[in-house]
Amino acid sequence: MNVRIARNSGFCFGVKRAIKIALKTSEVNHEVVTLGPIIHNPQMVAKLESQNIFKVDNIKQIKGRPTIIRSHGVKKEILEELEKENIEIINATCPYVSKTQDYAKSLSEDGYNLIILGDSNHPEVQALRSYVDKKVIIVADADELEDKQFKKVGIISQTTRRVEDLQKLVKKLVPKCHEMRVINTICNATTIRQISTLDLAKESDIMIVVGGKNSSNTKMLAKICKSLVKTYHIETASEIDKMWFKDKQDIGLTAGASTPNWVIVEVYNKMLECVGNINKVDNIEDIPGFKEE
Amino acid sequence: MNVRIARNSGFCFGVKRAIKIALKTSEVNHEVVTLGPIIHNPQMVAKLESQNIFKVDNIKQIKGRPTIIRSHGVKKEILEELEKENIEIINATCPYVSKTQDYAKSLSEDGYNLIILGDSNHPEVQALRSYVDKKVIIVADADELEDKQFKKVGIISQTTRRVEDLQKLVKKLVPKCHEMRVINTICNATTIRQISTLDLAKESDIMIVVGGKNSSNTKMLAKICKSLVKTYHIETASEIDKMWFKDKQDIGLTAGASTPNWVIVEVYNKMLECVGNINKVDNIEDIPGFKEE
Repeated sequence: MNVRIARNSGFCFGVKRAIKIALKTSEVNHEVVTLGPIIHNPQMVAKLESQNIFKVDNIKQIKGRPTIIRSHGVKKEILEELEKENIEIINATCPYVSKTQDYAKSLSEDGYNLIILGDSNHPEVQALRSYVDKKVIIVADADELEDKQFKKVGIISQTTRRVEDLQKLVKKLVPKCHEMRVINTICNATTIRQISTLDLAKESDIMIVVGGKNSSNTKMLAKICKSLVKTYHIETASEIDKMWFKDKQDIGLTAGASTPNWVIVEVYNKMLECVGNINKVDNIEDIPGFKEE
Repeated sequence: MNVRIARNSGFCFGVKRAIKIALKTSEVNHEVVTLGPIIHNPQMVAKLESQNIFKVDNIKQIKGRPTIIRSHGVKKEILEELEKENIEIINATCPYVSKTQDYAKSLSEDGYNLIILGDSNHPEVQALRSYVDKKVIIVADADELEDKQFKKVGIISQTTRRVEDLQKLVKKLVPKCHEMRVINTICNATTIRQISTLDLAKESDIMIVVGGKNSSNTKMLAKICKSLVKTYHIETASEIDKMWFKDKQDIGLTAGASTPNWVIVEVYNKMLECVGNINKVDNIEDIPGFKEE
């Protein structure tokens, strides 16, 4: 049996940066909070608590503590409220997400009807939407578009969607509008992880996808794998069932951009154990197939 | 047997306008010329000669006569040369084509790499291209695109292409560029004629497409029909062969946006004759299926 990991699995630039900002802030403060989970990974959020970085769900719970803005960003109104209440703000919004907010604003100001490809319940999309005063259309799939003609349409995407879904949306909109401006805001880390995962899934009999059940980019990796092969989306090694690997030859592992290396290593070692292999690893770099591009 | 015509067949707004301008000009001038065929229909061009409207192929042949700019437009350099030589210019460029030239110019000025969907040898595309000083990419099909990444891409189309081809091009470009601005310059008359023709072709055993062999929009109608049913692209009734209709039940007729009504009526009457029907018509409005929308 053969267990391999997809190239580029694990933390992306924006997630690494957010964690670094949080840890640095906690060094000089007794207690800090993040407004919502700083990244969509419950294991990492729990670990940060040991460093006095606590997740709060609303402004009332902040109680004067320095507040880190999560990697997905927050709604404009919330940022304004924090400023009004003189709360110390440490902004850990992913720079690619911030850039997307700028695009949303400028497209709307230039008179484009804004269409966002994304999950309307996701914090990134909710924050994004808040930067536009006019009506915004949010669709998770081109099929959700209502049959309507537009004069000028501006299209952006949640940073963690599939480029195929953006292509489908744009294609569908061509006959529905006179003018269309598309800014491909799907981040490079997302695309690279999706391609690496797809490549590995094609060569595997089973795929294990590790990452937050609430993580959009991890769910997208699971969706990609599911279209090809039997797939399990797990958060930790404890969820693994030995029976999954029965009669499987090529076993693939991939992880979302918000999955910490130690979680990935634990999962990999547990998988090895299940298939009767004793060559455990200590670092993600030692897992066969890993490569940071 | 049943002979029907596609709704909206024949002259579009831009063609009617160009012919009207030409005739009006010839009323007040002894002789006028058009630089290139005023529309892509040899029968109409020949007819205009009887009204002293002559086609010339280059500036040298103008010899001081008032010059009508064809419906497809001409290259910017040619217009400048005519002005320099003090030749009286009567511009019969289709307003939708002029508008497309404006879009080409402004997209390029705004820093977009211009990609034109169209036939690089067609006068409309050559004129369009001349309004941009920078490099322009012209493709007749998305498959012709070279594998290259762009920062900002501006996409316009020759007015007579298929919207499906524009969709294919746009879809292909999404992963190849950061930003894309698409202006759907396919004219409404083109789209309406294509839809009407497609609808009729679906219900026909054979399609006759009438119009200039050099007419881009007529060739596109023939291409659409050919994908569904046996199709003949003809210019005049004289090309019809009775044998084409042997054992055919539903016979469809359609005509390009530059095909004069009298040519369409002649073709229809000849088709009736071939199938042994004596109910000839005098006007296009009397052909079953005709409807101007």
